[in-house]
Formats: sequence, structure tokens, C-alpha cells
Amino acid sequence: MTTITVAKGDGIGPEIMDATLKIILAAGARIEIEEITVGEAVYLAGNTAGITPEAWEAIRRNKIFLKAPITTPQGGGYKSLNVTTRKFLGLYSNVRPCISLHPFVSTKHPAMDLVIVRENEEDLYAGIEHQQTDEVVQCLKLISRPGCEKIIRYAFEYARQQGRKKVTCFTKDNIMKQTDGLFHRVFDEIATEYPDIENEHWIIDIGAAKLADTPQVFDVLVMPNLYGDVLSDVAAQIAGSVGLAGSANIGEECAMFEAIHGSAPRRAGQNMANPSGLLQGAIMMLNHISQTDIAEKVQNAWLKTIEDGIHTYDIFKEGTSKVQVGTSEFADA
Amino acid sequence: MTTITVAKGDGIGPEIMDATLKIILAAGARIEIEEITVGEAVYLAGNTAGITPEAWEAIRRNKIFLKAPITTPQGGGYKSLNVTTRKFLGLYSNVRPCISLHPFVSTKHPAMDLVIVRENEEDLYAGIEHQQTDEVVQCLKLISRPGCEKIIRYAFEYARQQGRKKVTCFTKDNIMKQTDGLFHRVFDEIATEYPDIENEHWIIDIGAAKLADTPQVFDVLVMPNLYGDVLSDVAAQIAGSVGLAGSANIGEECAMFEAIHGSAPRRAGQNMANPSGLLQGAIMMLNHISQTDIAEKVQNAWLKTIEDGIHTYDIFKEGTSKVQVGTSEFADA
Ligand SMILES: CC(C)[C@H](C(=O)O)[C@@H](O)C(=O)O
Ligand SMILES: CC(C)[C@H](C(=O)O)[C@@H](O)C(=O)O
Repeated sequence: MTTITVAKGDGIGPEIMDATLKIILAAGARIEIEEITVGEAVYLAGNTAGITPEAWEAIRRNKIFLKAPITTPQGGGYKSLNVTTRKFLGLYSNVRPCISLHPFVSTKHPAMDLVIVRENEEDLYAGIEHQQTDEVVQCLKLISRPGCEKIIRYAFEYARQQGRKKVTCFTKDNIMKQTDGLFHRVFDEIATEYPDIENEHWIIDIGAAKLADTPQVFDVLVMPNLYGDVLSDVAAQIAGSVGLAGSANIGEECAMFEAIHGSAPRRAGQNMANPSGLLQGAIMMLNHISQTDIAEKVQNAWLKTIEDGIHTYDIFKEGTSKVQVGTSEFADA
Repeated sequence: MTTITVAKGDGIGPEIMDATLKIILAAGARIEIEEITVGEAVYLAGNTAGITPEAWEAIRRNKIFLKAPITTPQGGGYKSLNVTTRKFLGLYSNVRPCISLHPFVSTKHPAMDLVIVRENEEDLYAGIEHQQTDEVVQCLKLISRPGCEKIIRYAFEYARQQGRKKVTCFTKDNIMKQTDGLFHRVFDEIATEYPDIENEHWIIDIGAAKLADTPQVFDVLVMPNLYGDVLSDVAAQIAGSVGLAGSANIGEECAMFEAIHGSAPRRAGQNMANPSGLLQGAIMMLNHISQTDIAEKVQNAWLKTIEDGIHTYDIFKEGTSKVQVGTSEFADA
């Protein structure tokens, strides 16, 4: 039995979390759930972090956190809980598999099978911004050698464990010679420790073009935070849908699992949303806590449902899909 | 007669420049050419800017600059001449049309017809980097209100002139509330001055995903420098090839026209390269200096050549293409 912290989140969050928990519990997941309230309600009660000390306490105590999407209110002062959690818990690695389910989910890139390993604490996400003059604002992009070493080593270790063959690094080091240059240099250094794994570097502009056009040439990709944010959405979407992708945020002690998409407030409460992204996050969680048997069972049931053409609205397409269902019917299937 | 400054560049530069000049002169372009030497040879002679004072003189005097791709030597100390030119001449707007040529050039996105208007002087391209400690480096992302106003107004004016219907802004202002937040706020302000043109804002992660998946929903896009760099390569590539796209860098006084791709040293001297990107730059130049008759003639001849299936190696595809030709044969055609 592992106790996990669960946050049902905002917007479509509660629906997809209920669906996800129902599925994994039905498959026999040996978990106990401690629920916390974070996000919109907490923000609007005047807490600009969107989270209470007790909730932090639970997250740190249980070490495993399954989180539905959260709505951060517009406007200054409110801090993104995603970013805060990643930083406070030292979740330096964000792992995002983007794999086509051709021919069951419509995609222009049937052979795509890649994983983006995104640095998760540094870069422009450090959140250091200031008003320089009345008309000039600045944001600091921060890259550290230990930060680069941790994430790049993680990417190579991950590739080796998963039997993947190649790690590709994206940076813009022809312009940012010091910051992105450091990331690239550390990549080249660490690559020499993994002679069994191919390595290559692309300048991000042409690399992103290649990714959007011919994603099947990539395997594992590692890159600074902001690039990883943008390109994991691109990769997930062209593989089928951002709604199908989950994400593992891994640190030395704790880990957080989530969907890569947002809380989609306009779709909330309508039993429409696809729970697959969060479910994929939950499957990564089950693997992480060594309940691989359950993870496999859930993954197979999910694949079978998708293959049977039982699709939510976002991936429904005449021809490939058979029936269009809501969140709860999808979970039941 | 307009005198233009021409730099033949490095790698495939000389070949594609010769081809481009041959084509536009054959079409009757009323231009005189003043050639300057910039780039690799100048860098390697010990000039870290890659350009001499005399070359600057010519560029400033003639005001119109047609530039082939340049190779910046690897390693610290060398400054990208692209970036220097854009900054020194105040070329604040970088206009990059990405239009499919379906069914003549193979593409998964036949209905794509968009223009990226990229801010060209600020952002992480300001080149302000420093070593903070032995293990920490930083780069400054700089956004100014006048910079935002200029580029966003340019995008709306451009849309109106070209009869385009919508301007879309991409930022990551849920994280960078001050810098990207300023860009977004100025966008919303200026949009109210153009009630005839639709406007919308996307967070860049999901916006980029939409662009890579369903580019036909976009029309004119405006965004900060680095996002524009990456997404214009993505858009050009999925429209057909980065080798087909040209770029206009526009300032109050001067303008520079180029291909969006690089100098491809490995393809150099083999009469292989596709001159279309630079030719598209030259067509934008002809329009800019009000030789629209010649611009149209060249554009039509180019389209006819592409439509006739006379393709260079990079866009050659069994089925769509008829004959594979080299740089000079393409120009002759
Ligand atoms: C919600 C937002 C802060 C977050 C990010 O930018 O990292 C999201 O886009 C993601 O990719 O997980
Ligand atoms: C060569 C490089 C400095 C340049 C840039 O990053 O702007 C290029 O990629 C471009 O898009 O024109």
C-alpha cells in the first residue's frame, strides 16, 4: 500500500481525476488516497500561492503526488502552482512521452515514438522578472552546471533503461553562447559516458522544424525548460492530441504526475473531457512506485478502449472512431 | 534604378545569390549592385563582427541589402552578423510568409497560408549574457514598450495592406507576467485601433501545437523574437521546406532581405541548393522598392517552374516532381 496525495484541481480536473482513480482502483492499484485542496478556491481565498501549509505537508510526507490541472487566476501576484511545486520539491526532470496510436487515433505522423525530457526548474521559469525603467522589463534566463548535469544524465539513464537508442539535445547556442552554450557543452561531456547511446545536437529552430515535420527520426530529446514546454505540446498534439499525453515530474525525493494539458474551464462539468492525459500520468506513477503489473493492466485496457474506437470528442473522427463517449463512459469502458 | 548592396555569403550562399541575381535581372529588375564581402572570410581575418567599416558604409548608403546566408565560426567572441545587422540598422520587423504550394510541392498542410511577423531586436537576442558564479550563467530577456508597439502596429498595418483578416499573438505570459505580459497588453491595446481586423492571443505552448497541427487556422502571427525564430522554421518546413521561405527585415530607414535557412556548408559548391528562399527574399525586396511589376513577373516564373515539377533535391518527391535539377538549371528554368 502506498499513500498518494491527490489534488482534483479545477475546470475539468475533478471529472478526469474521478475517472482516473476509478480506473486504476478497478485494476487493483494498491494505493491509499489523501486528498488536498489546491488551486482556484485557495487562490481566490487570498492565498497567492494557491496552496496551504497543510497541503504542502501532505505532499512532502507522501512523496507521490497525482495532480489534476489547476486554474491560476489572471493577473499579477498569483504564482503558478505547477512551477512552485516543481521548484519547492526539486522536481528537476519532466518526462513526456509522445507516441502515435496509429491507426486507432488519427495522426499525420503514424511512426512517431519519442520522449521529451524537459529541464524543470531553471531557465526563464526561475521567475526572476523586474521592471527596469518605466518602459523596459526584463526576465532572467538562468542555467547552472549542476542543473544541466542532473537533467542530461537523467535523459541518458532513462534512454538506457527504456532500451532507447538516441538522445538529441536542442539549444539555441549560436545566439546564447553562455547559457544554452553551457547546456550543450554539458550534453557533449555526459554523452561520452554513454557510448552505447547515440547522441546529437540541433539548433532549436531547425530542430523544431524537423520535429514538426518528421518526428519519427527522434527518440529521446533533452532540452531547457521553456523549449521543452513548447515542443512537448507540439509533439503530443501531432502524435494525436495534447489530451492523450501524461507527464512525470521527478525529483530526488518526491515525484508529481499530471496531464500535460490545462484545466479547460469551458469544457468543465459536461462529462466531455478525455481523461487519458491524467491516466497516462497515473500509469507513470504506478510504474514509479513499482506497481508495474497494475500499470501494464491499465495501459492495456486503455489501449484496447482506444483501439475499439471508443473515443471522447477531442479525438473522435469519422472513420477511425466508432462511438463518441463522455468522460465517465470512457472510464467505464 | 535602385542601388542595392549584395553580400554573397558563405557555403551555398554564392551559388544561390548568383542564381537569384540572374533571375531578377533577366526579368528586368532596375537595380545596380554594389557587392560587399562579409562573413567567414572577414571573421577569420580576425574581425569578430564579420564585417568591415566600408561594408557598413555601403549598407547604410544604399539602404537596401540583399544578403545570402553566412557562416559564423563556432566558439566565443564571434558575433552573429544577422543579429548585429538587425540591431545596428534598427530592422525591428522580420516578415516571414509560409504558404503551401499544394499540389506542386508535397506537404501535409495543403491549405496553409500564413505570415509570421517576428520582433527582431529585443528578447533574448539582445545578447546580454554573463557568468554569475563559476557554475551559474544568465541571459537577459529584454522587452520594451516602444519595441512592442512598433512590431505589433507593423503586424496590424501589414494585415490591413495585404487584405488579411486576423492577427494572432503568441506569448508565455502565464509565466513571464512582466515581459511577455507587456507584449500581450500592448497587443490588446493596439488591436482596438484595428476594428476591421480580428485579433486573438494564444499561450505559446498550445499555440505552437495548433500551428504544427492545423496551421490553416492562422493568418498573420506576431510574437517576440525567439518564439518567431523557432516557429517560422516550423511553419516554413511544414508548408513545404525551409528552403522555400524568404524573409524581409524592415526598419524605418533600411531593409535587409534574405532566405530563412542557413549556409549549409556541406552542400556548398555542388550546384544542389534550392535558390527559392533567397529568391523569395529578392521578390519581397522588389516589392519594397516599388518594382512590383518585376516582382510579379519573377513570382509567376518561379511558380510556373515549381508547378512544372522542376525541383531541386530538397523538395524532390516521386509523384509530385518531374525532374530533379541543380541550382543553375533551376534558375535557367
Ligand atoms: C501551466 C503551465 C505553468 C505549465 C508550464 O508552463 O510548465 C504547463 O504549460 C505545462 O507544460 O506543464
Ligand atoms: C542565424 C541565426 C542567428 C538567425 C536567427 O536566429 O535569427 C536565423 O536562425 C534566422 O532565423 O534568421
